Formats: sequence, structure tokens, C-alpha cells
Amino acid sequence: MLQDTVIPERPMYIPQYPPQEPEQGVVLLEEDTDPVERVEKALQCLLPYDPSVHWMTEERPPFLYWKIRDFAHAYRSGITTPSVVAEHVIAGVEEWSNKEPPMPMLVYFNADDLRKQAEASTKRFQQGNPISILDGIFIAIKDDIDCFPYPSKGATTFFDKIRTVEKDAVCVARLRKCGVIFIGKANMHELGLGVTGNNPNYGTARNPHSVDRYTGGSSSGPAALVSSGLCPVAIGTDGGGSVRIPSALCGIIGLKTTYGRTNMTGALCDCGTVEVASPLAASVEDAMLVYSAIAGSRPMDKLILRPSPLCVPNLVFPDNNNILKSVKIGKYTEWFHDVSDREISNTCEKALDLLCSNFRCQIEEIILPELEEMRTAHLVSIGTESFCDLNPHYKAGKRTEFTLDTRTSLALFGSFTSTDYVASQRIRRRIMYYHNEAFKKVDVIATPTTGITAPKIPQGSLKLGESDYVVSARLMQFVIAGNLLGLPAITVPVGHDKQGLPIGLQLIGRPWGEASLLRVASAIEELCLENRKRPSAFYDMMKA
Amino acid sequence: MLQDTVIPERPMYIPQYPPQEPEQGVVLLEEDTDPVERVEKALQCLLPYDPSVHWMTEERPPFLYWKIRDFAHAYRSGITTPSVVAEHVIAGVEEWSNKEPPMPMLVYFNADDLRKQAEASTKRFQQGNPISILDGIFIAIKDDIDCFPYPSKGATTFFDKIRTVEKDAVCVARLRKCGVIFIGKANMHELGLGVTGNNPNYGTARNPHSVDRYTGGSSSGPAALVSSGLCPVAIGTDGGGSVRIPSALCGIIGLKTTYGRTNMTGALCDCGTVEVASPLAASVEDAMLVYSAIAGSRPMDKLILRPSPLCVPNLVFPDNNNILKSVKIGKYTEWFHDVSDREISNTCEKALDLLCSNFRCQIEEIILPELEEMRTAHLVSIGTESFCDLNPHYKAGKRTEFTLDTRTSLALFGSFTSTDYVASQRIRRRIMYYHNEAFKKVDVIATPTTGITAPKIPQGSLKLGESDYVVSARLMQFVIAGNLLGLPAITVPVGHDKQGLPIGLQLIGRPWGEASLLRVASAIEELCLENRKRPSAFYDMMKA
Repeated sequence: MLQDTVIPERPMYIPQYPPQEPEQGVVLLEEDTDPVERVEKALQCLLPYDPSVHWMTEERPPFLYWKIRDFAHAYRSGITTPSVVAEHVIAGVEEWSNKEPPMPMLVYFNADDLRKQAEASTKRFQQGNPISILDGIFIAIKDDIDCFPYPSKGATTFFDKIRTVEKDAVCVARLRKCGVIFIGKANMHELGLGVTGNNPNYGTARNPHSVDRYTGGSSSGPAALVSSGLCPVAIGTDGGGSVRIPSALCGIIGLKTTYGRTNMTGALCDCGTVEVASPLAASVEDAMLVYSAIAGSRPMDKLILRPSPLCVPNLVFPDNNNILKSVKIGKYTEWFHDVSDREISNTCEKALDLLCSNFRCQIEEIILPELEEMRTAHLVSIGTESFCDLNPHYKAGKRTEFTLDTRTSLALFGSFTSTDYVASQRIRRRIMYYHNEAFKKVDVIATPTTGITAPKIPQGSLKLGESDYVVSARLMQFVIAGNLLGLPAITVPVGHDKQGLPIGLQLIGRPWGEASLLRVASAIEELCLENRKRPSAFYDMMKA
Repeated sequence: MLQDTVIPERPMYIPQYPPQEPEQGVVLLEEDTDPVERVEKALQCLLPYDPSVHWMTEERPPFLYWKIRDFAHAYRSGITTPSVVAEHVIAGVEEWSNKEPPMPMLVYFNADDLRKQAEASTKRFQQGNPISILDGIFIAIKDDIDCFPYPSKGATTFFDKIRTVEKDAVCVARLRKCGVIFIGKANMHELGLGVTGNNPNYGTARNPHSVDRYTGGSSSGPAALVSSGLCPVAIGTDGGGSVRIPSALCGIIGLKTTYGRTNMTGALCDCGTVEVASPLAASVEDAMLVYSAIAGSRPMDKLILRPSPLCVPNLVFPDNNNILKSVKIGKYTEWFHDVSDREISNTCEKALDLLCSNFRCQIEEIILPELEEMRTAHLVSIGTESFCDLNPHYKAGKRTEFTLDTRTSLALFGSFTSTDYVASQRIRRRIMYYHNEAFKKVDVIATPTTGITAPKIPQGSLKLGESDYVVSARLMQFVIAGNLLGLPAITVPVGHDKQGLPIGLQLIGRPWGEASLLRVASAIEELCLENRKRPSAFYDMMKA
């Protein structure tokens, strides 16, 4: 297709947009300030914390997950300490790892290190000097992001021998500055080159809602950890839905930020044009707090991408409801319902209806042409950019150390010609035009996050892996614009299918429009809270 | 090499630079103003015109070429009219075309159209209303730039059937606004994919200094036309030395502007990352006047490339000599002398010595590493970007309509993988770093323009074409930084070899540093004027 078609557009090698209109009702977080200050500002944007909600016997609204502010309250009021919670985390991780079947959520875990971090945090609380709301908060880091002194293997068996970790990735360093405790390196689809989360090297992480099913990927471990309650937030990477897909399949929130919003230095793939580092969280407010800590563009990117100022929605703002009322939601109905089971799209539609009936915001019909071309252009881009990093090692004898699935992907990527790559960048500009046109009419585009709910793990795939392109295509069906075009997107759990598997609604925002997305997502989360279920595999970090 | 090497730099897909320091002693030409105003401003920057020089019997300094201001004076003082000169041009073109061997400088020529344009200009002079100094000036346009109503074939036999011309390219439209008369579409190496100028479709343009030798290419026709006196300026394109190489081989000036300095809309290759449209001229002042008319970035590029303001050197400025004194010239001696015959580099060195002794400017030794890698990255970039445009036609049955040489090139380009392309962009950033480092020490880098003087045209190549990679490499030896890194460069004739073939000195400037280049080139031109020779094949447009 790429070689036989005249594509008139000029190539666009990086998703670039003209400066955007400022968002309404937001609070600016100055990028160059200390992450501690930014998190503090973001905290002021949340509706006041009511400690009575979760600390009374009768729980109402229904308790799903402990949030960052729950932990913060518990630490500050002496209900528990980071060191006590650390022991629960250690016990939880061990329990999952020894389960039958095993649920390997982490590929690197060091109980002693965790205890040391927790002890330091506990001490800060004892001295009355916690650093920020994130102090003592347990966060897992996907294995393709550097978190010193742990190795970064991208869940391969060998990558630490090729590339050593000397310091934290920039986003990890920002969290560490806020007092975060790092659980370890979370499992993933090898090198992020797949979206089921299958991993024969370390075992396949399992979906806490149904342990014979995939978590989705590639951020399988981060999603499993958050979904099962072991931590409120994890950091993943999203180059082709890798944050959003597992978040949707595991019933949590997954935020994919605008391309370039966060400095990717210290991620295994820090040179691509489609990938970002982003939070998976049990709640929108936790995603927002962690987002405010990790965001901040690479200086070099700022000049090229000209990001809109970093900001978060002010949810305390009295006009928040009025702003929600004016939000126009785009829906391409034919595409919206092109899912394996209408139950998925119907559930998403109901969530939108709830939003509209509660805030009287409007749904506008839109059309997004050439979605298949967009998918091709994305595959060529991400495939090329990944393979470019791996090629020298692949050729230098490492080929057989990759999983069979990765080898299949790399063989495909290696077949792309240089003109395929440039043609894909022409398509990028073309598809961007269509989306820009849509964003003249609407503020947000809504789709189901995935075209299927969590697929079963075939028994045979555990040892050998699998390359199921039909399943991958269904999982990736709606996520591509976020990556090829660099647009921000978020998935919010809105219900479950007949088998009890979570369904996610995806909102795609304007470039740099994270704040609007978080606002709308927060409203939908609230409206759909009663539809959510706590997974069967759940570990209560505070009440254990 | 590209596939087996870990290249740590991030890819840089377009040559981008941080904002540059303003140049000294320049006059700003506001990009968005009428080209007529800009040319007028540029004109004020030239030393006053002395009509007595060329219009006296005894010529001194030695007369080489009629310049734009000579024509302008002749039109204004009634010595001749554009219509009279048009008849000389028509006679000249016909004479060359009917010569044995034929010297096909143009692939599209229409005497009637030329007469019509000249008549309109003559009328403006009769009415005392010439539009600008460029009114009535004859300019040829390379066949890969649109000049309505002529077809654009890129000197293929068929490209006009694939792509029709509906209006002038932006740079041509700017010249037309100034009253320029367009001679026709100049011959070139097919699609610009070679640097000798060999063209079996229309015949190979011949070097006016020695008609059994190549002009160099790909802008073969533009160089031959200017060198033989048929017009003072022609517009070519330079993606791999295509303006500078034939200019050097034909003893004229060739200016390659910074990538993005001119809006490429309306060029056959308007989407690449290495190519610009630029003037070939008989004198630096003519290059400067035409540059001031055609320059002006594409609005979309402005946001990404952040060009320094468009300006020209103020040569009237009393401190011009002082500015020249402070110019530091970089020379990588080992590279400088890596030519087929030391006569070339020695002649260039003498020109630099003259400059230094006259203006006391300094030569600094520099080192530019990884030149071979730069060449590879450039080949992959330009090859991919060209092939990307041609691929659909190539696959749709046009393959056998390309010349054998082009088919060989496209077969090579088609073998590049997508990772080769991305790896090349990593090398781009790496080599850019080395050049940035050099430009901390020096203002201009000097090299011979080519590693050989004009090569002989093998008899057998006229019909079948040829692919001589050794000759190509020698011709392209010094030009690559201008293209891969987007840097401006200029070639100035500084002498002749023992066989009487012209030798060009190349100056490579800082990004957006055209004004400084023009200033230094102007000084060198003046100092080396006595070394230049009028070519044996010369047509005197005014005295004929």
C-alpha cells in the first residue's frame, strides 16, 4: 500500500502542532519548578479529601482502591506507616509469585531495597517532614524505564548486559524527588513489541479480574499491580496503546500523554516518535497527581514541539460543571461500534449518555477517514524505530535470545524499506489533518479503548509465546491516533461485560489537552463508579 | 555500516538549529514583503554601478560576463531592449542546439513565448515603468522547478504525463513579479539523480570551457547557459551538490542556500530534507540579487526551522573591510588536499592566501570527523526521499521509461531499509554536532568545491548513459554538509587547471549565514577575477 500510492502530503517526522488555545479552568504547573511544588499545586485542584469516607465501617461510595490521598492520610494520622505497608507489598508480591498459576507482575524485585526506601519515608513522617503528598506512595516502574539501581531489561533475558543503568530516568527521578517508593521493575511484553503481555521469559502477568486471561500489554505488570491493589499507580510506556490497552482490560485508568510532554531520557526507547512514559492508576485523581510530577518536556523537544503550558484541571473551580457542559464529544459511530461484541460499545455509549444527561454536554457525529492507512503508518513507524535500536545487537548474535514473538515482529520490521518509512510520515500528516478537522468541531473524541475485552491466555503460549495478529489488531483498534499523531488519550473503566471483564472508554484529546481529558475522565469515573468491580485477585494494602 | 552500529544520537529528521547570532553589517530583507522591494534593498547594498567600465572600448577590469546591472543599464539608457536581447538568446540557443556535437542546454524552449515576454518588458521600459532591476533579465529554470506554462519533466521523457504544471513554483513566481523573462526549462541529469549531467533523453549538456567534457550536474543546463553567456542567472536545485558542482566545473558562482530558506512548493522534489532551489550566476552580485528575490521560507517550515532573518551583506557599508578582517576561515587541511590533482587544492589555497593577505583574515585548522558516515547518511536520505516520490510510478510500469543510470540508482535506493533511514538521521545529528563545534571556532569552512575538474564525456555514454561512482564520489566529495546538514554554501571560481578547466572554491557557512558567505565570496571573486577565463563557447548577448 505504501509503495504503490502517491501520497501528496509532505512527510511529518514528529507529531507537531501549531500552538494550541489555552484550556479553560486549569491551573498552570510551571515545568521548570520542582516536581514537589507541581504536585502540591495539582493537589489543590482536587475536591477536598474526606477522611471519613474510607475510614468508617460502612463504606460509601463503594470502596474500590486505596488512593494516594488515602495513604497520605493514613501516614499522617498514624494509622499506618510506609514500612508497615512495605511489608504488605512484599507479602503480596510473594503471594502472587507463588500462586498457581504464578502471576509474575515484576521482573525485578528486591525486598531489602523496598524496606530501606520505606524506612526512610517512615522516618520523614516520624519527623513530621514528609516531602509531598507522594511521600511513601508505592509505585512500580515498567521494565523499559530506568529506575536506579535496578537493571532495565525490557523483560528480555539479556538487555542489561547491553545497556547498563547508571541513574534514574528523568520521570523516575522526578517521582523520587517527591518521596515515592519504587516497588521494582514491572513485567511487560518483551521490549513492548506486543499488546497481550505474553512473556515466556518471566511468565505472563495475569488479569486480576480473571486469572486465566491476559492483562493486555505491553504494560502488563504495571496494570496487574495497580488492578490488584498492590500500588495505586505504576509508570508504563505507550507507543501503541501499551498503557491504555492493559488499563482497559484490567479495569483501571490509563493516561497517555501528548508526545513530548515528558522527557523520555532514560527509557529504553527514548528516540522514537510515537512513545511516551505515562501513569496507570486506580483513579483519575492519582493519575493526575503523578502526571503533574512526571511531566515536563525535554528541552530539545520544547523548541520543536512547542508544547502548550503544563496544566491540570481545577476541579475545585466552581464553574467546573459549566465547563463540562460546554464540552463537545466527537463520536464516529460506525467505528465506535466496530467491536467484537456490541456489549463493549454499548457500555461505552451508556457512559457517554450518562455524561450528557448529567452535564448536558453534546455528542457530535464525526468521520475519521483512512483509519487502516493510519494503522499501517503507525506499524511502520514504531517497528522501524524499535528495530533501529535493536538491529546492531540482533545482528551481533543476540537474535536467538529474543522470544519467538519478538523475532517474528523484528523479521516483519526488517522488511520495511526506507521509502515505506517516509511514506508513513506522509500519512502521518494526512491523518493529522483529518483529526485537526475533527477537533474544529469537537473537544474530545470518544471510542471504546479496545475492540475486545481481556482475551484468554492459550495454555501453549506460556512457554513459546504467541503472535496472534487478529487479537492484536482488536486490542489496538482504537489506540493508534494517540501514538501516530501524538495526541493525549485516557481510558476510564465504565463497566464489565457478561463475563465480568472490564470495559474501558477512551477519550482522545487535542494536542497538549491533558487537562481537559482529566476533567472529563474524572466526571465519567464518578458517574460510572457503581459499574466498577474490585477484581477477584485483590490485595488490600491497608487492611490486610 | 548503518545496521551494525549503535548510534547513540536521537534521529534528526530535518536539519534544525537553535536561533543563530545575527550577522554583522547586513541589511534585513523582510520575507513577507514584495520581492520587488527586497531586490531594491539588495541593490542598495552593492557598490555603485559604474557604467563606464563595460561601455568603453578599452575594458578594465577584464570583461567576463554581462551582469544584471549591465543589462539594466543598457535597457534604461536605450543601448538595447529586452526584445533585441531575446533575439540574441533565440539565436544562441539555436546555434548551440545545432552545433556538432549538439549542446542541449534546454529541454523546453519556445521562441514565441520568449518574444512575448520580452515584448512586455520592452514595453515597460518604453513607458518608463520597469518593475525592478530584474525587469527584462533572462533567467533559465531547471526542469525540476515549475515555470508555467512550460511542462516540468525533470529531464525525463514522461514526467509531464504524471504531473501537470498549473502554476509557477513559488520561487519562479517571485522572479516573475520582478519582471524576469524565462528562457525555458534547462537540461539536467534525469530527475537530479546524478552529478555529471549526462542525459541520454535530451542529450548531454556540454561544458562551455571544453565541449568534450561534462558540465557537472545535476543542474547541467543552468550551468551551461550561464557559463556560455546566454543568461546571467539560472535557478537550479541542490540536493547533493547539484548547483555547486556544475557551477564549479563551468567557472561560475553557485549558491546553495540554507535548507528551508526558500519555499520549495512547485519543485518536483518539494518534500525532501536535503534539497533547496538556488541561483547559479556569472557573478556574486547577480547571485545576491536573485537570492534576495527568491528567498522566503515556507510558512510551515518557519515554525519548525526558525530561520534567522533574511538578509544580504551591505557591501557599501564603510566597515565591510573590517568585517572581512574578522572572518575566521576553517580549513581541514588533510581533507582539503584529498583531491585527484593537487593543482585543484593548491589553486584554492592560493585564493585563500590572497584573501588573508588582502584582508588579514585568519585561517584556522579544524577537523571534521566521520565524513564517510556523513556521505552514507546523505545517500540514504536523498535516495529514499527521491524514491518515495517515484516508487508508485516505478511500480506502475514506468520503470523502463527511466534511463539506465536512474534505474541503477533506484535499485540501490530501493534496497535501503527503514532502519537505514532512521540510522541516517541519527548520523545527521551526530555530524551536525561536529560542524557546530567547528563553527564555534570559525565563521566559514573552505574546501575545494569538487575533487576533480570537469571529466571527459565518454563517447559511449551519450546514448546509454553511465553510472561512474568513482567520478560521482570525486565530484560530491566536498558538498555533502551543505545538504545533509542544510548549511549554506557557495562556490566561487578561483582559477583553472593546466587543461584550462575551471576550479571552484567552496565556502560553507553557518546555518542561515548566506549574507556572510556572499560577502566573503564577493571579496574572493574580486581577488581572483584575473584568474578567470571566458569559456571558448561564449555567446555575447549584448555585443552579438
